[in-house]
Amino acid sequence: MTDNNFIFISPAQMEERFASILLEIGFTDQKANECAAIFTANSVDGIYTHGVNRFPRFVQYVKDGFVLPHAIPSLKNKFGAIEQWDGNLGPGPLNAVHATETVMGLARQYGIGCVSLANTNHWMRGGTYGWQAAKAGFVFIGWTNTTAIMPTWGAIDPKLGNNPMVMALPYKEEAIVLDMAMSQYSYGAMELAVMKNEKLPVDGGYNSNGEQTNDPAAILESKRPLPVGYWKGAGLSLLLDILATVLSGGLAVHEIAKKAVEDSLSQVFIAIDISKLGNHSMIARTVQGIIEDYHQSVAADATKNITYPGERVLFTRENNVVNGIPVLRKVWEGILAL
Amino acid sequence: MTDNNFIFISPAQMEERFASILLEIGFTDQKANECAAIFTANSVDGIYTHGVNRFPRFVQYVKDGFVLPHAIPSLKNKFGAIEQWDGNLGPGPLNAVHATETVMGLARQYGIGCVSLANTNHWMRGGTYGWQAAKAGFVFIGWTNTTAIMPTWGAIDPKLGNNPMVMALPYKEEAIVLDMAMSQYSYGAMELAVMKNEKLPVDGGYNSNGEQTNDPAAILESKRPLPVGYWKGAGLSLLLDILATVLSGGLAVHEIAKKAVEDSLSQVFIAIDISKLGNHSMIARTVQGIIEDYHQSVAADATKNITYPGERVLFTRENNVVNGIPVLRKVWEGILAL
Repeated sequence: MTDNNFIFISPAQMEERFASILLEIGFTDQKANECAAIFTANSVDGIYTHGVNRFPRFVQYVKDGFVLPHAIPSLKNKFGAIEQWDGNLGPGPLNAVHATETVMGLARQYGIGCVSLANTNHWMRGGTYGWQAAKAGFVFIGWTNTTAIMPTWGAIDPKLGNNPMVMALPYKEEAIVLDMAMSQYSYGAMELAVMKNEKLPVDGGYNSNGEQTNDPAAILESKRPLPVGYWKGAGLSLLLDILATVLSGGLAVHEIAKKAVEDSLSQVFIAIDISKLGNHSMIARTVQGIIEDYHQSVAADATKNITYPGERVLFTRENNVVNGIPVLRKVWEGILAL
Repeated sequence: MTDNNFIFISPAQMEERFASILLEIGFTDQKANECAAIFTANSVDGIYTHGVNRFPRFVQYVKDGFVLPHAIPSLKNKFGAIEQWDGNLGPGPLNAVHATETVMGLARQYGIGCVSLANTNHWMRGGTYGWQAAKAGFVFIGWTNTTAIMPTWGAIDPKLGNNPMVMALPYKEEAIVLDMAMSQYSYGAMELAVMKNEKLPVDGGYNSNGEQTNDPAAILESKRPLPVGYWKGAGLSLLLDILATVLSGGLAVHEIAKKAVEDSLSQVFIAIDISKLGNHSMIARTVQGIIEDYHQSVAADATKNITYPGERVLFTRENNVVNGIPVLRKVWEGILAL
């Protein structure tokens, strides 16, 4: 891939295009704008896989009736600081924004809150909701289940979801946001490495002979990506699925895997209101102290910066706002043709 | 090591010995019994590193004044379903049991609760509190920070804690309990592999030339163990430390690392009362469905069972109850001499 494969689209132009497409396929004005803003923000932040590159599939899911543009979440059960909602197969990002707003309300009232969401759609980038909550002054812990994409440790058939987990908190005017899927590499990352004719930086799975490898094509063929930390990430993926399913009353990974497409997901949103902590006035300094120590790490390669989760996003964001969002030419042409 | 290096101690005998030692060094009857029961249960469950093998160091920390046998946690701040406690450098396991009981009380009242603990001591095995909460009918999420034991991704000097995280929920009459530290292997596991003259099953760190290796001796020399999932576990370790520090108002990894020993830790305990969920009557069946599907995984090696987190503990527990707890002869002799 060369630079010539990319064109640069301003955030405003992208958002406008996304919104007009969503309007045409039945979204209300407000929902089209909200959804377009999320897909654009994900692209501005450099998460193209869950921004501009994913947008055509989102549109297709709406057209095919998997994502229902008018559906809104409905409350199924409430007890104190926990609420269980049904996503009613509405747009995943809008449902997740709603859940995040709701859980922040619970946290304001009770210090901590937990909202779960059954029957929702792909939330795209989990970090979106981490940033949303953190910038409003909350600690956020959330996760989603997914369809089955990888074998557990010691197995060869896919039973585990990628089940991304997000942890976030405010930092300076921005946030520290960890957004971590349970496979070492996503299928998207491995496909990109194949396109670029590159090996993976570390082993990412097995080849068809069952040997650990950093050859992305071999892993795509075997369908045996590695969980992060081998047995550890496999266990974490399983627990995240069980907890999402239990807490929401929704579907588990093995049930989602039987569906025509990846929908009817289960999600969990936990928020803690930092202003209710006894030490709240010290927290900014505490976190800064941790990050300053972390930044003093001695890099193995002196040309590389040691960054915390979410830190590089700030550079990408600034760059993409100034220079436009780099979009694969054929992706943008596809979006213009939608 | 041969079988001859081990002797087999009954749980009752171990617990009695531990309790009598703790009484001698100033524990009350009740606290000696509680603490002895936890160290024994961890050993029965096969977690010897945080049971019998660790007991002598615990005793030494009491003698040296790092662990204060009479200290009990005190409430610093409360708002709704969150409480912040000071552990006052009391015995880590007793403080953690207290925090778990407290957070279950909050969850009964509010559906979810969060208790944090500053200035506490090593909780030994995190799974202890996962089992405690799960067997009482709660979802549990908890973690602790530790001293700095590994470099972050791309760095060579230790800045990150091992920061074990626990997730648990009831299952049948027992529990599913994930207890996961953030390094691929603990120092204890690597030392054991060196003693047994074995390589690690997967790469666990770097040698002193900066090459990834499965040679435990080389990693012990370089002091560069790998985080689970490379950059991913590094990020998770950092976030767990930040959140433990922020939520408890206690010390962070970089501050603990400056202390004479690993004390004054920060911990978080979150519980959700399953009986308050609208779907609570279905949950047992839901979890069983997930585990049944998981157990149907096709093993790469047909002689090996695919197990969920906490499953093998049940076999070890039964075996150790029936046959006695295998203890390294020199460890037990050391304990008899205490």
